[in-house]
Amino acid sequence: MIDAPCGGNGTCGKCRLHLLDGAIEGGSSTSLSERDFAAGWRLACMSTVGADARFELPDTAVAWQSGLKVVAGMADDRTWQALQTSLKEQGLYTASGIRDLTLTLSEPSADDVRPDGQRLIDAVIEQTGALDVELPASVLRELPGVVRESNWRVRCLIAYGYSSGDDADGIVSGTEFDGESGGGETAKVISVFSADESSPACVLACDIGTTSVSATLLRLSDAEVLAQASAGNAQIRYGADVINRIIAQNRAGGVERMRRAIVEDTLNPLIAALCATTGISAQAIALASFAGNTTMNHLLLGVSAEYLRRDPFVPCFFSAPGLSAGELGLTLPAAAPVSIAPNVGSYVGGDITAGVMASGLWSFDELMLFVDLGTNGELVFGNREFLLSCACSAGPAFEGGDISCGMRATNGAIEALSIDDESLEPTYAVIGDEAPLGLCGSGLIDLISELMRTGIIDGRGAIVAEGPRVRRDAYGIGSYVVVAAAETASGVDIAITEVDIDNFIRAKAAIFSAIMVMLDATGFGVDDISRILVAGGIGSGIDIDKATAIGLFPKLGSKRFSYIGNSSLAGARAMAVSRGARELVEQIASNITYLELSTTPGYMDAFIAACFLPHTDQSLFA
Amino acid sequence: MIDAPCGGNGTCGKCRLHLLDGAIEGGSSTSLSERDFAAGWRLACMSTVGADARFELPDTAVAWQSGLKVVAGMADDRTWQALQTSLKEQGLYTASGIRDLTLTLSEPSADDVRPDGQRLIDAVIEQTGALDVELPASVLRELPGVVRESNWRVRCLIAYGYSSGDDADGIVSGTEFDGESGGGETAKVISVFSADESSPACVLACDIGTTSVSATLLRLSDAEVLAQASAGNAQIRYGADVINRIIAQNRAGGVERMRRAIVEDTLNPLIAALCATTGISAQAIALASFAGNTTMNHLLLGVSAEYLRRDPFVPCFFSAPGLSAGELGLTLPAAAPVSIAPNVGSYVGGDITAGVMASGLWSFDELMLFVDLGTNGELVFGNREFLLSCACSAGPAFEGGDISCGMRATNGAIEALSIDDESLEPTYAVIGDEAPLGLCGSGLIDLISELMRTGIIDGRGAIVAEGPRVRRDAYGIGSYVVVAAAETASGVDIAITEVDIDNFIRAKAAIFSAIMVMLDATGFGVDDISRILVAGGIGSGIDIDKATAIGLFPKLGSKRFSYIGNSSLAGARAMAVSRGARELVEQIASNITYLELSTTPGYMDAFIAACFLPHTDQSLFA
Repeated sequence: MIDAPCGGNGTCGKCRLHLLDGAIEGGSSTSLSERDFAAGWRLACMSTVGADARFELPDTAVAWQSGLKVVAGMADDRTWQALQTSLKEQGLYTASGIRDLTLTLSEPSADDVRPDGQRLIDAVIEQTGALDVELPASVLRELPGVVRESNWRVRCLIAYGYSSGDDADGIVSGTEFDGESGGGETAKVISVFSADESSPACVLACDIGTTSVSATLLRLSDAEVLAQASAGNAQIRYGADVINRIIAQNRAGGVERMRRAIVEDTLNPLIAALCATTGISAQAIALASFAGNTTMNHLLLGVSAEYLRRDPFVPCFFSAPGLSAGELGLTLPAAAPVSIAPNVGSYVGGDITAGVMASGLWSFDELMLFVDLGTNGELVFGNREFLLSCACSAGPAFEGGDISCGMRATNGAIEALSIDDESLEPTYAVIGDEAPLGLCGSGLIDLISELMRTGIIDGRGAIVAEGPRVRRDAYGIGSYVVVAAAETASGVDIAITEVDIDNFIRAKAAIFSAIMVMLDATGFGVDDISRILVAGGIGSGIDIDKATAIGLFPKLGSKRFSYIGNSSLAGARAMAVSRGARELVEQIASNITYLELSTTPGYMDAFIAACFLPHTDQSLFA
Repeated sequence: MIDAPCGGNGTCGKCRLHLLDGAIEGGSSTSLSERDFAAGWRLACMSTVGADARFELPDTAVAWQSGLKVVAGMADDRTWQALQTSLKEQGLYTASGIRDLTLTLSEPSADDVRPDGQRLIDAVIEQTGALDVELPASVLRELPGVVRESNWRVRCLIAYGYSSGDDADGIVSGTEFDGESGGGETAKVISVFSADESSPACVLACDIGTTSVSATLLRLSDAEVLAQASAGNAQIRYGADVINRIIAQNRAGGVERMRRAIVEDTLNPLIAALCATTGISAQAIALASFAGNTTMNHLLLGVSAEYLRRDPFVPCFFSAPGLSAGELGLTLPAAAPVSIAPNVGSYVGGDITAGVMASGLWSFDELMLFVDLGTNGELVFGNREFLLSCACSAGPAFEGGDISCGMRATNGAIEALSIDDESLEPTYAVIGDEAPLGLCGSGLIDLISELMRTGIIDGRGAIVAEGPRVRRDAYGIGSYVVVAAAETASGVDIAITEVDIDNFIRAKAAIFSAIMVMLDATGFGVDDISRILVAGGIGSGIDIDKATAIGLFPKLGSKRFSYIGNSSLAGARAMAVSRGARELVEQIASNITYLELSTTPGYMDAFIAACFLPHTDQSLFA
């Protein structure tokens, strides 16, 4: 799958192919230099192949899609462990609302001609004390065969709390995975299969990122992570960011195409991979939870996200309760409940509400700032008293977009870098220990910080030093060569230009000014922030001191920063295993106030003031 | 579509084709005489076409499938009118549980960025006082486009009482179509469309017969019949009766094939025809109700009916609450609730429970007998105190099957007949006033009765008279020629053989002995039956005196018989328009006791005693 961050507009230049034989039509754009064009480089998105031709596809042009990775039993995620502990301490870590029953049904006889379904209902009521039991059509379809093939000894997964008429306050209290929940409630049968099936009952938790999707299979009985898998979001071929995805969905049939890309081409293969690795049957997966941004949530359901990007930026839904796997087209039992972490605005979605739940932000007396650094920067500031959120268009700089030498944090990415004071020569670390291809977000932060520290660039981002690594093009635009072509995997220089630096400064200014405006709106100052929790795709490699040095974050000292990893996935896991967590995330979402920056007085001034390294007000970083 | 009552086993002989040119392989069977084979007749089900050949397909070989018939505004069904009146008198004719709302939603602005879905929920709650409102994914998918294209003025169909957690006693009392129901309940949004859409909110009621399917479109506001359509059940190509359908479903993929035949090839075209005739948009159809026998109900849901025909004859379900149109694949709004009249046994299904509701049997002090004369004869005996049901394998004789000259009650069928005492010549009436093709059920009853009255046959059904219309074949088997080949549409004699008469006697004996066994089981006698209600496909043409003369029914006098038509459809209509009726039919079903004749002592004796014209105990008919 060819990378297309700009959605095929010829503007990002990421889909460069090298023409070996034959000829193509087009293939040029302003994002491809004349020299490179002459050397045989073409943009795939601008090319028409009319006759036989042979190309080479460099790694840089490959979207992070093919790499479906599965790790068995990876349960050592600190945020996830901490979240479980925190929810337990607060009495919110309740049972999942799912039960795995083993039932021996009485065999029919001339004296007992109850239908198969009634036999199952009666047995479930007898074992659980459920008030009523629902059998969806999908279960009825399986039932006659299953009961007879299994000699009337079946396993049956049931869900509580998914009957739409249930009260929200129907939490089963004091029952942490004790299997005794559900009496007096309506139970819905999710799936039924032979008692000989050895797969433990499981739940699925997924973080749906714009770029990549992570899925965890957890065992229901003890919330143990059985396997973890990730893959690129197959929607990526329609554009790298949510705006390009929304543009793509507006073409005829586009919403359904995007829905299929995420469901059929991404999630279902992930489910298959998790099942194959663990040997678990998909019919034993009783529930799925999803955390994604507002656009991802809409496209997952096949709902147009068009109005998210149109003033006044109104989504179709925040919460979407009562969904089932069958409605979404997932290869799970059709009646399996699906929980989606709620959105709170067009640009603050379920990944943030799940992440805030995972971060614990909502539970402390101290004020904390949650920062998710991705294509959009999303921020939540507050404590147990209030939660204020905003989103700023940081652009994709922190994921390597909008930067000529930028790339995602995958193999070949320079993730850490320093520059020698004297020689101005760089030293760097590459992910996967391979020949370098480009810089990911953390590498870019280090590079800008080091260029600044060594005086190669000034506060405006202009290159002011001279030396063997500094170049200027025909228009006088300077660049700093990080790795010369001879040493790179692509055979092209890895260099950062003044245009790149300017893009990066605007991205960090968007984040910083959003923080200042949120503080201003709530009457607090930088020193009132007891901790900054950094989440998201920028990776654990971020150097907080360097990030502070360039003015991305306010100066608090690195001890007051925590990198909390994929908090969205941790939140989704909690939702999958705990009914209390599913209710908590809805409650957190309803408590989050959304601040629309574009209409907040003072934001533009704050942004412009922050477009300097580290800031026009040097006293903030003194 | 070629008729195949036997499911393609070569035994019924109904699929006779006339070979004009070319040759085919096979085509013969014991049900085709050597003379007919020599004359070019072939059985389609036994033939293999290896090269070009030309055939003529007589009308007798065409299954009643092509004739999708639509009648607009046919509301003069007496049973339906009487049922409405009866339910109203008893306070059971409550509102449908559906409301058609016209809502003006507030437009989003910078000050009001509620999601589209929340706007709809808030407006529904404001207008109805609903406790909570559910938006299924199917509605969310439509919503962003609909609200904007309609300038925020929408119509919205909502259902109450379909939330699975709702109590069964949540009947909205005292509100007959007053549109004020539903406050304090959970509402489910079924569909949303522009307020400019002029289609009135409607409901759909269907009777799914093994042979033919009838569908009614009713206006929600006043339960008026807007259109009525019928078509053959497309499953007919897999066999005429439920046993052959079950055999067919057992082939690989058979259940799904049968489900598609009824849903995609029968019901969806009927829905399209009803919409086309009335100009009503399918999105305005808020609910569907179905009444069918137990096998039809199973196959409608895609559930195997295999175990209905295996000892101890246990179906998968009696009731199937909580279904929606989307789960069933119907071209209605995916969230439209679907109600299925409950089964009470493998051979007493929803057509009977709906029919009993329609007949009023459950409401009277007097004892009545409900008789549905079809392939199976189903009987219900009782009053407001008790209801006893049974099913007897009458065979398809009353629908023209198992009888060489039999056919369904369509054009060309002799439906009434008398024989002159002197000349022994018949006079007959043909449906559609066409050249005759065969005899339908009512014509056969008349024929047997007249053959008996005129002394052509004796009590055992043997032909004992001689005359120009009496023939004997090489084996001495007698037959009576009703219409000579020259006057028939097919160019073949219409004649009844002693074998046919024997089959018919066994069919009538099955019904009569079932009646006697039910009376015996409850301690009543023939004279205790205040009324016999005859329902089903035998048609309104049945001559009760002649039916009694042959011993099909006990001797009560024709005034104590009522023909109540398609009571199954009338019951389905009540279920579609009245929530009270949907609850009533479940209650009736749970009150019906099922008597398994095959294990009832005395049934076999009673059957054998009834295998005589009119009966071995002549005193019963004196």
